[in-house]
Amino acid sequence: MDVAEILIDGKWQAADVDATFHAENPATGETLATAFPISRWSDCDAALSAASKAAVTLREVAPERLAAFLEEYASNIEAAAPAIIAAANEETGLAVSPRLKDVELPRTTNQLRQAAAAAREESWKRATLDLERNIRSCFVPIGPVVVFGPNNFPLAFNGISGGDFAAAIAAGNPVIAKAHPLHPNTTRLLAEEARKAASTAGLPSGTVQMIYNVRNADGLKLVSDPRVGAVGFTGSRGAGLALKHAADEAGKAIYLEMSSLNPVIFLPGAIAERGEQLGRELIDSCLAGSGQFCTSPNLILLWEGEPAESFVAQVAKGFSERTPQPLLSSSGREHIREGVAALIHAGARLAAGGSVSNGSGYRFENTLLRATGAQFLANPSGLQREVFGNATLVVTVSNEEQLQSILQILEGNLTGTIYSAKTSDDDAIYSRIEPLLLAKVGRLLNDKMPTGVAVSPAMQHGGPFPATSHPGFTSVGIPASLTRFAQLRCYDGVREDRLPEILRNSIENPQTWRSIGGEWVKG
Amino acid sequence: MDVAEILIDGKWQAADVDATFHAENPATGETLATAFPISRWSDCDAALSAASKAAVTLREVAPERLAAFLEEYASNIEAAAPAIIAAANEETGLAVSPRLKDVELPRTTNQLRQAAAAAREESWKRATLDLERNIRSCFVPIGPVVVFGPNNFPLAFNGISGGDFAAAIAAGNPVIAKAHPLHPNTTRLLAEEARKAASTAGLPSGTVQMIYNVRNADGLKLVSDPRVGAVGFTGSRGAGLALKHAADEAGKAIYLEMSSLNPVIFLPGAIAERGEQLGRELIDSCLAGSGQFCTSPNLILLWEGEPAESFVAQVAKGFSERTPQPLLSSSGREHIREGVAALIHAGARLAAGGSVSNGSGYRFENTLLRATGAQFLANPSGLQREVFGNATLVVTVSNEEQLQSILQILEGNLTGTIYSAKTSDDDAIYSRIEPLLLAKVGRLLNDKMPTGVAVSPAMQHGGPFPATSHPGFTSVGIPASLTRFAQLRCYDGVREDRLPEILRNSIENPQTWRSIGGEWVKG
Repeated sequence: MDVAEILIDGKWQAADVDATFHAENPATGETLATAFPISRWSDCDAALSAASKAAVTLREVAPERLAAFLEEYASNIEAAAPAIIAAANEETGLAVSPRLKDVELPRTTNQLRQAAAAAREESWKRATLDLERNIRSCFVPIGPVVVFGPNNFPLAFNGISGGDFAAAIAAGNPVIAKAHPLHPNTTRLLAEEARKAASTAGLPSGTVQMIYNVRNADGLKLVSDPRVGAVGFTGSRGAGLALKHAADEAGKAIYLEMSSLNPVIFLPGAIAERGEQLGRELIDSCLAGSGQFCTSPNLILLWEGEPAESFVAQVAKGFSERTPQPLLSSSGREHIREGVAALIHAGARLAAGGSVSNGSGYRFENTLLRATGAQFLANPSGLQREVFGNATLVVTVSNEEQLQSILQILEGNLTGTIYSAKTSDDDAIYSRIEPLLLAKVGRLLNDKMPTGVAVSPAMQHGGPFPATSHPGFTSVGIPASLTRFAQLRCYDGVREDRLPEILRNSIENPQTWRSIGGEWVKG
Repeated sequence: MDVAEILIDGKWQAADVDATFHAENPATGETLATAFPISRWSDCDAALSAASKAAVTLREVAPERLAAFLEEYASNIEAAAPAIIAAANEETGLAVSPRLKDVELPRTTNQLRQAAAAAREESWKRATLDLERNIRSCFVPIGPVVVFGPNNFPLAFNGISGGDFAAAIAAGNPVIAKAHPLHPNTTRLLAEEARKAASTAGLPSGTVQMIYNVRNADGLKLVSDPRVGAVGFTGSRGAGLALKHAADEAGKAIYLEMSSLNPVIFLPGAIAERGEQLGRELIDSCLAGSGQFCTSPNLILLWEGEPAESFVAQVAKGFSERTPQPLLSSSGREHIREGVAALIHAGARLAAGGSVSNGSGYRFENTLLRATGAQFLANPSGLQREVFGNATLVVTVSNEEQLQSILQILEGNLTGTIYSAKTSDDDAIYSRIEPLLLAKVGRLLNDKMPTGVAVSPAMQHGGPFPATSHPGFTSVGIPASLTRFAQLRCYDGVREDRLPEILRNSIENPQTWRSIGGEWVKG
């Protein structure tokens, strides 16, 4: 049988095949031809050994070469875009345009180029010089990084091309990417472009490696291996917590982005002022990517009453009228079916959708559910359930006190949003509920939907557990995301000619910000 | 029975006493009079509730008031210094002068004042402004912090006055301090000064709380409680790993400083050039505080041969001639006895000491052990054992290759030190072994002993697991230590009048460094 090869130590090679799997076209349900390997442990072991060797060599590689690799890779992706986009479309059902071609691929290459700029600039290392005592410190690479990409961004969060990959490489680490099994061929095409770019840039052969899939037990072994420096993971809470447990026990740094309801609160003044416009915004945000975004609004909070009824009716109508888009997999559809049933079991009632859709491939009707604030408070664990996909729960509260109680029992989330009147009508309520929402989220939004996650240096794509594993880190935003894959190193009394260049009294790089005697100094 | 009161929600109050314990004077073995409580869970619960409330109020407290508290507290400690030092001397056996009076107490008040300056300056929040997109982020408090102080620094690492305390408060969090049971009275006196200062500064009543001791099960429950934001711990590996497991499972941030051998390598040229001077430095460093420092040299590496023999003989002589100083406890002495026996069982032989000392109180002979590099490589887990106290292992290597092999199997350490010739004689060896040592340590030293840990912004008092729980953080050095107790928060599209002051377009604080459009800007 012809089985796709894995990328180990700079070469495509036959996997130590335990079993094989096939991707599907979720828009049609068709099984795709290529067989991909589920690797045995020996493949992980080979990747770890090569990555360890690469990590040692990379310490001596100039930041300029890391940057050159990232930029070359971005250009390669652009040159190979038609094939990559076609593969991603086939494996994910996401639209070629605008989604893959006009949004996700440019986001991916933009991230790689921003990471290149950060590597070249070196300010992310936060070089700190205490000249009086000759104590100096900076961030240095943490060691081989294992990246698990999610199912929903085949390019921009792919383990071999996404934000974690870019951050880990820019920080000077080799990456072992585990493909998401829903888009192996996309990952293969990206890995080939990465391999070529790494070769052109002269990076060590173990810098960029990729395996398609492993057994769960080997995944746990992988993240806790002594050769690993850190792990980046984006995916489900169940898988994330299992990996976290294994990595924690081994003392390995692991950064997980796991789950989020992304509550959106519409204050009464906002609904009164521009309810119809907000309804349209909400429909667009909830149904973008079939709701398969980590920041998709899963929980809507608004005041009960006639304006809320009109608003909900409008949203329900929009949900019903829009054609359901393909989901990423049959298991994703099953997850929605189970989630909707569980929400109904917990007391929610349907306002739109609720069933598997008749369209081709894997689709579920755009589903809007409703519950009251009293119901939510009576069964918070039942109704506080992320349904990853095109299903959203609207909770109508009878008063502000009830809303406050709901906010106080929310779990940690990536985002929290408040829409308020453009006038000062909602200001008093806003000031009382905002602190409660803030305590539960990494990013607070005003008057805009949470589904856009700009690659901005000021972004926090993270938040309190269980949204992520540590609220002090972000997986989007450069250079902040790089420090996840770094360790702090101090040189105490070390002779100047033995110091890394960035810690010497004067440096060549005119771009680098350093903290000297408590002041930030450039170049 | 008269039992000392605990500090809960601003008031000294009777504990919910499960049992009591007494401190001892380790210099005499005498049991001290005061009975201190081991609290039941209800005390933890009360502290957590008060801390949660305080955390909410503290969000609105101006940094200036946090700074005023820290400075007031430092002054209070100075005013009460005679009583505090007397208590610490009685409970720890550490010398009043120079140790407690001239080194540790000034270090403690200096840390509090540096933390005050950092709180006032606010640059630690790393405010980052993306003005074009109106996305802004900064670090904000993480929530109630539980601090477990170690046995060996009754003031400078005390849960109620040390580096973790200062960092957590300066970052805007309430602290629940768990006293170390070897110095409860010292902790009581400090807590009273903290209480008075918090009252003077008008901080919420739950900002500063202290309990003396809890059952292990309640300690685990405490660090995993939903009301906790983060945990700081300095102590043994066993206790640390148990707390880490509990906190990790609950998704709580925990920062542990657990164990370190602090290898010191003497290159041949250094021994040839100034062996006798280095021997004196080593004796001083190993026996300072009876070796009860987290950065005390536990493992010495040097080339076998005549110069090494002279050097070891000198150090052994010094160890034998110095009067053993009191250890912190009888269990500490027992730990050394067991550790030395285990090292001997693993093949080490005694060069000095090796037995319980006859002096009053708890003392152990200053103990020097020896092994060969071949022995170390044959039994790395047996000989790579931290003995917390005045016992040090010297390993003589037959060649550089053997040294390299040893460095490659070392566990993570806080520090690693290389002494080399002032001439270029050792430069070639240095350049080859330094990368191997660097991979295992948080702080690299040249030609100075690791036992000094300066409170410098460039310090890294941390390192790879199992020295600490995460190599990206430091527990000493301000403002870097503050970010452990912070979460990253983003404001996306939020109206300017709703932003915290530090994220507005212009700010009042002229001292604060902010990152705007990738450039650091002050004020």
